[in-house]
Amino acid sequence: MPYSYASHLKCPVCGNEYDLHEIHQLCECGSPLLVEYDLERLQQEVDIQLLQERKPDLWRYHELLPVASEDNVVTLGEGMTPLLNMPALGAHYGIDHLYMKDESLIPTGSFKARGAAVGISRAKELGVEEFAMPTNGNAGAAWALYAARAGMRATIVMPQDAPMITRSEVALAGASLYLVNGLISDAGKMVAEKVQRQGVYDASTLKEPYRIEGKKTMGLEIAEQLGWTMPDVILYPTGGGVGLIGIHKAMQELKAIGWITGSLPRLVAVQAEGCAPIVKAWQEKKERSEFWEESTTVAFGINVPKALGDFLVLRALYETDGVAIAVSDQELLQVQQEVAAMEGAFVCPEGAATFAAAKRLAVEGWIHPGESVVVLNTGAGIKYPDTVQTEAPILEIGDSIL
Amino acid sequence: MPYSYASHLKCPVCGNEYDLHEIHQLCECGSPLLVEYDLERLQQEVDIQLLQERKPDLWRYHELLPVASEDNVVTLGEGMTPLLNMPALGAHYGIDHLYMKDESLIPTGSFKARGAAVGISRAKELGVEEFAMPTNGNAGAAWALYAARAGMRATIVMPQDAPMITRSEVALAGASLYLVNGLISDAGKMVAEKVQRQGVYDASTLKEPYRIEGKKTMGLEIAEQLGWTMPDVILYPTGGGVGLIGIHKAMQELKAIGWITGSLPRLVAVQAEGCAPIVKAWQEKKERSEFWEESTTVAFGINVPKALGDFLVLRALYETDGVAIAVSDQELLQVQQEVAAMEGAFVCPEGAATFAAAKRLAVEGWIHPGESVVVLNTGAGIKYPDTVQTEAPILEIGDSIL
Repeated sequence: MPYSYASHLKCPVCGNEYDLHEIHQLCECGSPLLVEYDLERLQQEVDIQLLQERKPDLWRYHELLPVASEDNVVTLGEGMTPLLNMPALGAHYGIDHLYMKDESLIPTGSFKARGAAVGISRAKELGVEEFAMPTNGNAGAAWALYAARAGMRATIVMPQDAPMITRSEVALAGASLYLVNGLISDAGKMVAEKVQRQGVYDASTLKEPYRIEGKKTMGLEIAEQLGWTMPDVILYPTGGGVGLIGIHKAMQELKAIGWITGSLPRLVAVQAEGCAPIVKAWQEKKERSEFWEESTTVAFGINVPKALGDFLVLRALYETDGVAIAVSDQELLQVQQEVAAMEGAFVCPEGAATFAAAKRLAVEGWIHPGESVVVLNTGAGIKYPDTVQTEAPILEIGDSIL
Repeated sequence: MPYSYASHLKCPVCGNEYDLHEIHQLCECGSPLLVEYDLERLQQEVDIQLLQERKPDLWRYHELLPVASEDNVVTLGEGMTPLLNMPALGAHYGIDHLYMKDESLIPTGSFKARGAAVGISRAKELGVEEFAMPTNGNAGAAWALYAARAGMRATIVMPQDAPMITRSEVALAGASLYLVNGLISDAGKMVAEKVQRQGVYDASTLKEPYRIEGKKTMGLEIAEQLGWTMPDVILYPTGGGVGLIGIHKAMQELKAIGWITGSLPRLVAVQAEGCAPIVKAWQEKKERSEFWEESTTVAFGINVPKALGDFLVLRALYETDGVAIAVSDQELLQVQQEVAAMEGAFVCPEGAATFAAAKRLAVEGWIHPGESVVVLNTGAGIKYPDTVQTEAPILEIGDSIL
């Protein structure tokens, strides 16, 4: 039995197909490419029971991943993050079955590790020795560290406002780091020039087809952790949108294989009021979003003014009867406190935004009584020290706390 | 079959026994108390195969943990952290089989979560509603967050030099936070006064017997992850020493049950040159350590001038033919870089100290060719932003990176 059942690359816009054995970035038509699998053969040959004996990381789903040989797997133990029950918070928000998929328990403290693990493994398999990418911080940190483990050279360009700690991660990994007095879109232009002029591999979001396959595993894990059933609703903080597209792809593949049945969960794209291009497009029932001018939010990971995969995000929302919703920075910072004080979890601002959205959707009645709701916390709150203000008395030796 | 096979508390110094159903802190003789289990009955009733079907967290070992009822378990999904092969670093250091047990993939980003999960669960089971503790930061953060999830009140006292992010964790969890212009030992005196005068539960290191049981699970996991065999050497960064004592206890219990056989691993206590009381005591073949005056190190978690459980640490070293070794801050900061650049892992300074010790023990020939060596990385490097200095060019929009 093969390690991977990936069969080819396919363009979701024009339908063009590409060979898996060659390096491909975007389709000729400019669209991202997606990995297709031989799901019929997989269904016949792979027994779901096999999974039980495998290690608790995302490589347990290797048949549904694009890496052809186990020898090329570059891993730091990523995946199978906890799916936690949040009963106190659920009661407070009026959500009967509230779960958090906690992506803080992953190398580099962010779900970006999934994309990096699969993306770097596949790049290694294809013989890539050097790549460049723009990032809002966490993806660059993850790709730089996995690149170090793979022995690959990396150039990372990030806004100077990106979380400080992600600079340290990139630098410590030995990658080339550049800071831009601008947004990820400005960083993207610099990377594009380097790719075009120097021929290095372009690891930008959705410009290589494999990162999404890593992020897909969040959907696979949610299904397995719920005993191969689906929740009613999944909420996802949406910047580039690859996580949400990946979860949608996972659900479709699982359904095609027959490992899950019934309706797919209603997907919710959560954005910040200061950067909500997907929300605007969804409200206007459009197929694509427009560039969001002067975007700003403390949830830095979702400060993406225009996503290359916007049409795939919107498609996933329309197909699953989902919604797109924006929350304010004030709301999300308050919710970050609620989640810690009621459930003991220090979520990242993007995760907090997603809890805030769940709260609002429950109040508005869009989430119904009895429904099960999974909120994605995409990273560790400890990577964002500036979102929390603390005041504590400073005592001298011998003072009393009575 | 019972959820836990814990039978009673026992003093490792005077042998006094105590009832598990009551709250106990130290033995009458002043020593920490340890949890004893009915290992004979466990051996007869519990099949090791059962474990395979359980979730990948530390509660999979519930028979060997002190919580009597599953209803009292307070969990954030902690445990079953990766045991990673480090082939490039191993080759560089001359260690044939080098593994890292990576405790960065755990709630709060530090192995302290294990102690907090089991300690808080057990405190809840005993009816505790309020506790106080001194901390070097990470333990206080973990206990405050798990307390929030359990609905318990916490008072946390830490040195003002403790990692900044741990203040945010404690504050966000809603605990009472105090900073001291001094060391953890000074914080400890303030907590002792509060405990004595106000009768709150004392959650100080080894003053309650359950935290160590949580940390013990690192040893259980290493054994299971190596297919129920033991490595030749385990290195541990040693401040209060509970992790090392716990791993030793785990190995002894597994051997008594018969799940592992053969010699126990040689245990290595790693300290910083600026705070090395255990190393000094070990060199002098003493049973206990002396207070280390004016201690200082960037590896803040192991800045513990005098550990209550020092005699248990030393006992574990003597019994397993282990050693105690101190490394300099300069050495550990350089090794932190090596680990990231060669293996893609951003380890904490305490973890880096432990890799530095492994490197030195290999050079000195204490680690032999062919041996397997497990290094504990006790937490996420991202909690210590100040240990990494980065310099990166800052570009304006439209600049080039060619």
